[in-house]
Amino acid sequence: MIGKVLIANRGEIALRIARTCREMGIGTVAVYSTADRDSRVVAYADEAVHIGPPHPRRSYLYMPNIIEAALRRGADAVHPGYGFLSEDPDFAEVCAENGLVFIGPRPDVMRRLADKAEVRARMAAAGLPVLPGSEGSVPTLAEAEDVAAAIGYPVVVKAVAGGGGRGIGVAADRAELPEVYRRTSAYARAVFGNGAVYLERYLPVTRHVEVQVLCDQAGNAFHLGERDCSLQRRNQKLVEESPSPGLSEAQRRRLGEYAVAGARAVGYTGAGTMEFLLDPAGDVTFMEMNARIQVEHPVTEMVMGIDLIREQIRVASGLSPSFTQSDIRPHGTAIECRINAEDPRAAFRPTPGRLKVFQPPGGPWTRVDSGFAEGDEVPPYYDSMIAKLIVWAPDRDQAIARADRALAEFAVEGAGMETTIPLLRSLITHPSFARAEHTTRFVDEFLPTALS
Amino acid sequence: MIGKVLIANRGEIALRIARTCREMGIGTVAVYSTADRDSRVVAYADEAVHIGPPHPRRSYLYMPNIIEAALRRGADAVHPGYGFLSEDPDFAEVCAENGLVFIGPRPDVMRRLADKAEVRARMAAAGLPVLPGSEGSVPTLAEAEDVAAAIGYPVVVKAVAGGGGRGIGVAADRAELPEVYRRTSAYARAVFGNGAVYLERYLPVTRHVEVQVLCDQAGNAFHLGERDCSLQRRNQKLVEESPSPGLSEAQRRRLGEYAVAGARAVGYTGAGTMEFLLDPAGDVTFMEMNARIQVEHPVTEMVMGIDLIREQIRVASGLSPSFTQSDIRPHGTAIECRINAEDPRAAFRPTPGRLKVFQPPGGPWTRVDSGFAEGDEVPPYYDSMIAKLIVWAPDRDQAIARADRALAEFAVEGAGMETTIPLLRSLITHPSFARAEHTTRFVDEFLPTALS
Repeated sequence: MIGKVLIANRGEIALRIARTCREMGIGTVAVYSTADRDSRVVAYADEAVHIGPPHPRRSYLYMPNIIEAALRRGADAVHPGYGFLSEDPDFAEVCAENGLVFIGPRPDVMRRLADKAEVRARMAAAGLPVLPGSEGSVPTLAEAEDVAAAIGYPVVVKAVAGGGGRGIGVAADRAELPEVYRRTSAYARAVFGNGAVYLERYLPVTRHVEVQVLCDQAGNAFHLGERDCSLQRRNQKLVEESPSPGLSEAQRRRLGEYAVAGARAVGYTGAGTMEFLLDPAGDVTFMEMNARIQVEHPVTEMVMGIDLIREQIRVASGLSPSFTQSDIRPHGTAIECRINAEDPRAAFRPTPGRLKVFQPPGGPWTRVDSGFAEGDEVPPYYDSMIAKLIVWAPDRDQAIARADRALAEFAVEGAGMETTIPLLRSLITHPSFARAEHTTRFVDEFLPTALS
Repeated sequence: MIGKVLIANRGEIALRIARTCREMGIGTVAVYSTADRDSRVVAYADEAVHIGPPHPRRSYLYMPNIIEAALRRGADAVHPGYGFLSEDPDFAEVCAENGLVFIGPRPDVMRRLADKAEVRARMAAAGLPVLPGSEGSVPTLAEAEDVAAAIGYPVVVKAVAGGGGRGIGVAADRAELPEVYRRTSAYARAVFGNGAVYLERYLPVTRHVEVQVLCDQAGNAFHLGERDCSLQRRNQKLVEESPSPGLSEAQRRRLGEYAVAGARAVGYTGAGTMEFLLDPAGDVTFMEMNARIQVEHPVTEMVMGIDLIREQIRVASGLSPSFTQSDIRPHGTAIECRINAEDPRAAFRPTPGRLKVFQPPGGPWTRVDSGFAEGDEVPPYYDSMIAKLIVWAPDRDQAIARADRALAEFAVEGAGMETTIPLLRSLITHPSFARAEHTTRFVDEFLPTALS
């Protein structure tokens, strides 16, 4: 069993991981950049090591310092959280080379998953529905035009190395394709260091539904129900919930089966997420697989009563999960709202600074995961999420009422600071959300009126 | 349906009630003494009315001002919380006379329950096991000596008007009885205005197990599982949990049946608690019924997924509960720890004052119910509880680990302020508690070593 974990991350997820380690009797080593030296996880963890200046490339992404900290402090495992190095196969490999358990899938599996076009092909071969698209990457515009003509417009051009909503362009017709193809490829080259793209039919009106999976090292694969993450602004999730409203039991079962088949098809181990699109006809198509714990994992935890970080550590230690598939039954509804320090009226510009007031809500079924306390500084170098509010209730209407109550209670103030709290309240109390008629376009369509 | 509730209480329970009202779309009127003018519920409620100076007799116990506030602000119901006027039949009657729904049982039922000796007789008649004891109250010492001789020593002398661990004396033998009889009777006369006492056989080694009941106005009675509240100091609960560890399914079912039969026997409506003693042989005997929401109600909420304040409001509105008996199935284990501003090393002397630091823990399955925020003053006039920490986990070991993790995270500081947090950590991590071998005497026996 793992005895000491280095947490190669920051903010709420670092504290979240440290809490579970503490409950399991596992030692913790936090790492921090200069900007995070006063952060809560630094005070909370058993040990903390400074790994560099604020810029992520020189701290949270800088492997040598992280590995050195782990070795010097005698950690036997590394939890990468989400973002940063969490989906970097090289990091997983370097961990292994240094005798450290990487809490996540094997490096070869991560490499496989990093090629979105290859994953698409493997999933199709495993029997999962995929959208009509190219076979693998499309190296030239001429080929892209041929593929698009065959599958029909609109098409979406996606970076092979992309993910998480980045490196995506939509061409409504043939006239738009050259520009979208070049722009997406250039973006992918600049951001991911790999300009390869592939094509898929574009579905304009969809819901984003994803399935949590957990696979142990003995080859057992489990699914833990789905999450609906359709409330997004520019492909960034704002609100997530579980279960996904409006799915039939048959759809739910099929999604679970697809997720398990897909995870097996790539030889997955650990906690991962299979993302799907749900179209208005109720048909699902595979979108991508994420090889990390997700920001929105708590909604699954709340409806299943299962600590996913604990399960990650168990399977990374070579143990089975603490449950079997027949134990997995959702209770009630959980909703997560991402509270970001940013200004929705100014194109979501981040508003970092000192949290003069920071009073999270309390009371029944009201969970707050945050890396900040009152008086802390929100640094400008990292993402702008300052807290996740997660509520549970026996049904969706009550969960919405509880989330709205808790958001209203959440007091955040700072010089020049704006948050997503007012927007989140407008979104979750909107009749379209109450009726679960919202799609991934809802936020962008609703924003102009919401902010007027 | 009730449209606006006056909350005739203060602190965490007032805020707890206001939160549920907000989620139900029900308006709230807070009342406050001068000492509580800056309290959180005053800021939180839709309206707030000052009802008098700090002393409870002139504010939270002073009916005329509370009733006037309700009428002036157009409240149609009053929630009394626990303590203060919550079990005062006169208050329930005055509410009714003024056209206000009292969220609790009917005044005649409350009067019946206020006579502990009569309740004992009714419960015995309804088939509940009661300890050998007197039939009704025992007006003279001579009679007490006869009863004690018949039932055998040790005996417990209890105030007919007592409850909540107050007005109780134990006589180990015949020599001790006169003094215990006189002291208990004098205490009862002074504190409850009624010196009548009754006698029962005393069980020295017991667990305190209580069953939550909910009865609607149509005569339906439900039980919501049991709570174990054996960790007490001088009959005041410190730690509560649900389910009660070590009960067999047959014992659990029998307790539920007793609780429902007992509630029916007194014509109960609303949320109430049937308290039992569990002896080492596994036999239960009825102790008393509490006609209010209890401090420890959240552990039942957590394992059942049911908001008990919501259910109280539903049945007070004439509706059925939102569940039926077959829906009631506990999931996992919940533990509540009472965090009091008092000094366990100085006989639990209260340590009121300003909360210079007050940072409740967060994270998964970690609920904090508190009426305070950082910077608030804990007034010296009321009870010393400043927060309730409630955790949930799939099993009891994990719940203990989570409670300990969360207690360690809970930062409370103030000039001269001490809290029960260190004691609570010693108690819940003690091997006797882990093995669930603790009885109601555990804290008092453990205290000298714990504090050395």
